[in-house]
Amino acid sequence: MIYFDHAASSYPKPKKVAEAMYKAVTEYSANPGRGGHRLAERAKGEIEQARKKVASFFGAPSSKHVWFYQNASMALNQALLGFPFQEGDHVVATQFEHNSVIRPLEKLVKEKQISVTYVEPNEEGIIPVSAIEEAVTEKTVMFALSHASNVTGAIIPVREISELTTKKGIVLLLDASQTAGTIVIDIEKDGIDLLAFAGHKSLLGPQGTGVLISKRDYRLSPLIVGGTGSNSELLEQPDAWPDRYEAGTLNTPGIVGLHAGVVEVERLGIEQIYLHEKELLEHFIAEAKKLSSIKLYGPKDVGQKVAVCSFSINGVSSHELAMILDEHYEIAVRAGMHCAPKAHQSMQTSEDGLVRVSFGPYNTIEEVEVLIKALTEISEAFLNGEE
Amino acid sequence: MIYFDHAASSYPKPKKVAEAMYKAVTEYSANPGRGGHRLAERAKGEIEQARKKVASFFGAPSSKHVWFYQNASMALNQALLGFPFQEGDHVVATQFEHNSVIRPLEKLVKEKQISVTYVEPNEEGIIPVSAIEEAVTEKTVMFALSHASNVTGAIIPVREISELTTKKGIVLLLDASQTAGTIVIDIEKDGIDLLAFAGHKSLLGPQGTGVLISKRDYRLSPLIVGGTGSNSELLEQPDAWPDRYEAGTLNTPGIVGLHAGVVEVERLGIEQIYLHEKELLEHFIAEAKKLSSIKLYGPKDVGQKVAVCSFSINGVSSHELAMILDEHYEIAVRAGMHCAPKAHQSMQTSEDGLVRVSFGPYNTIEEVEVLIKALTEISEAFLNGEE
Repeated sequence: MIYFDHAASSYPKPKKVAEAMYKAVTEYSANPGRGGHRLAERAKGEIEQARKKVASFFGAPSSKHVWFYQNASMALNQALLGFPFQEGDHVVATQFEHNSVIRPLEKLVKEKQISVTYVEPNEEGIIPVSAIEEAVTEKTVMFALSHASNVTGAIIPVREISELTTKKGIVLLLDASQTAGTIVIDIEKDGIDLLAFAGHKSLLGPQGTGVLISKRDYRLSPLIVGGTGSNSELLEQPDAWPDRYEAGTLNTPGIVGLHAGVVEVERLGIEQIYLHEKELLEHFIAEAKKLSSIKLYGPKDVGQKVAVCSFSINGVSSHELAMILDEHYEIAVRAGMHCAPKAHQSMQTSEDGLVRVSFGPYNTIEEVEVLIKALTEISEAFLNGEE
Repeated sequence: MIYFDHAASSYPKPKKVAEAMYKAVTEYSANPGRGGHRLAERAKGEIEQARKKVASFFGAPSSKHVWFYQNASMALNQALLGFPFQEGDHVVATQFEHNSVIRPLEKLVKEKQISVTYVEPNEEGIIPVSAIEEAVTEKTVMFALSHASNVTGAIIPVREISELTTKKGIVLLLDASQTAGTIVIDIEKDGIDLLAFAGHKSLLGPQGTGVLISKRDYRLSPLIVGGTGSNSELLEQPDAWPDRYEAGTLNTPGIVGLHAGVVEVERLGIEQIYLHEKELLEHFIAEAKKLSSIKLYGPKDVGQKVAVCSFSINGVSSHELAMILDEHYEIAVRAGMHCAPKAHQSMQTSEDGLVRVSFGPYNTIEEVEVLIKALTEISEAFLNGEE
């Protein structure tokens, strides 16, 4: 099987991820930090090691600034729904946001009477920094931005944007679900205030892991309150980090799996991963362009994209195309809306969605060639009206 | 090592739990239901199988009524913070609630102006149904009750209580974190409206799993909103269950691990597990009573308890005692407040906490005897002033 659905979840995972999880379950499945015995201490220690690794990987001030959740959606909800918005506050987002950003924002519009501007991409499918700047009003308190679109792969230039937020005292929340593990991110140097991402995509960790890193104290209200194993006498959530934002038993196997994933990314080298995936993307785009029936969406310049590319074939529905690729060619791609409705609105592809291919560190040029061959055959079959 | 900390997390886990998780990570780590290919379909199918197993195990109307979370705290927060409380509404809870119930309730007291009565246990450490009934006012809309105390093991009689809630039209939220997997629970027959529990305790699943089962539609507002892989065009959370209450990528490895845990509980037989743990508890209590320096807390009648027992030794702090048991005897127990501050208030043990032992299906009488021997030695050493 050829797997080109890394933007949804990476596959295969490094063996060490599965092994670390197996070990956690079989050797030290005690409750981390909620015991008074060596097994609980071991679980706690392993989680702390993972926290430190994630902190250093993203340039967080300390491990306490790293909070673990079940997925990026929850991390983003904690950042957005927990943020101390006041009535009338304004947020700048983009048309490329995932529903995990759009839906919390729309909830805040209804319940807290904030307003949101979703900045549109230009004709090349790029969100211009100037358009983001123009969207700022006196009431703008936050930018909530996808680092890269999960539909087109288009990247926003974080440093240019954070110059703006720093100057204007706006909080920058970055959804790095599509970039964490393929693009170097340093929250200090990049000027990111709140960084959210999934563990199970390019970080090569397991599903069940999402992270929010908070550079400073933005007075977030905890989304979930409950047992923290610390300050048990308090009837409200304690102040200490990370406990304040991590009620309940942590997902020890998932977190140590994520740790192993990040170690693998470091071993491969994040720059090497980026260059490798870029090469696959370049090859795919160059070859796909030769097929007249294929329409590619998003930036053509691979320097402005991660290795995610959406397309359609004239007259073939996206779901049908994905099914043919799966069933006849054993190539895994994704079809549909990709949980990003506004991106499809802006590209006028809401009705039928798009097929998306997304490459990972273990994919090869040969696999991309198999895909191109398959797309060529499918295009010809449909042109000849064979299906 | 002898492990007596099952009330925090069970250990060891069945090998099949770790194996199922390993398989999920290595064989089908695609995103469940968010693809258009066989690997995504497989992940989706495995989650649906787990959902069906949990639904049938607890007598839920269908698999759609079963919602997966990262832990019981989150399931309880979804039930409590998501409940459509109105100002002035009243909730009946008990002094035995865990912080995962107390803290959301206290948040609701502050933010939604509800009121809460925490019913006290009687002298035997039992919450009398009559006391719960007396706490009901005209404004009572919910009972939020621990099925069993995580400090003393004291059980509440669910069927007697649900007669009351059914008669009065009150919603019964049961926190079964200490009973799911050791006491037969059938939400239909037991009259439970909302059932929340952890997957990593007596259900023998991994950490990172919690469940909320909703018998009917109580108009809960979703705590987390975001990607659902369904109705992607909507800017708000879709209505369909379970998607409405499960935003973001699910923890596939954790969920299939939980499935394997439940299968193991079925294989062992839940009644057999209960009787086995009861035997261990009876033996422990009978022997511990012979030691004059030990004070046992909670019900003495093992028929009114799960296999959880807290105690103190005259003049020894709970943390010191747990440390000695761990370091000198390799026995894992838990010390402190156990995230249940009101339970300790009612027993006047807030200052020093208690040591808690909790038994699991793989523990043996011989292990209990090692514990008794250790406690005897420690008591004597402290009586003789040796430490």
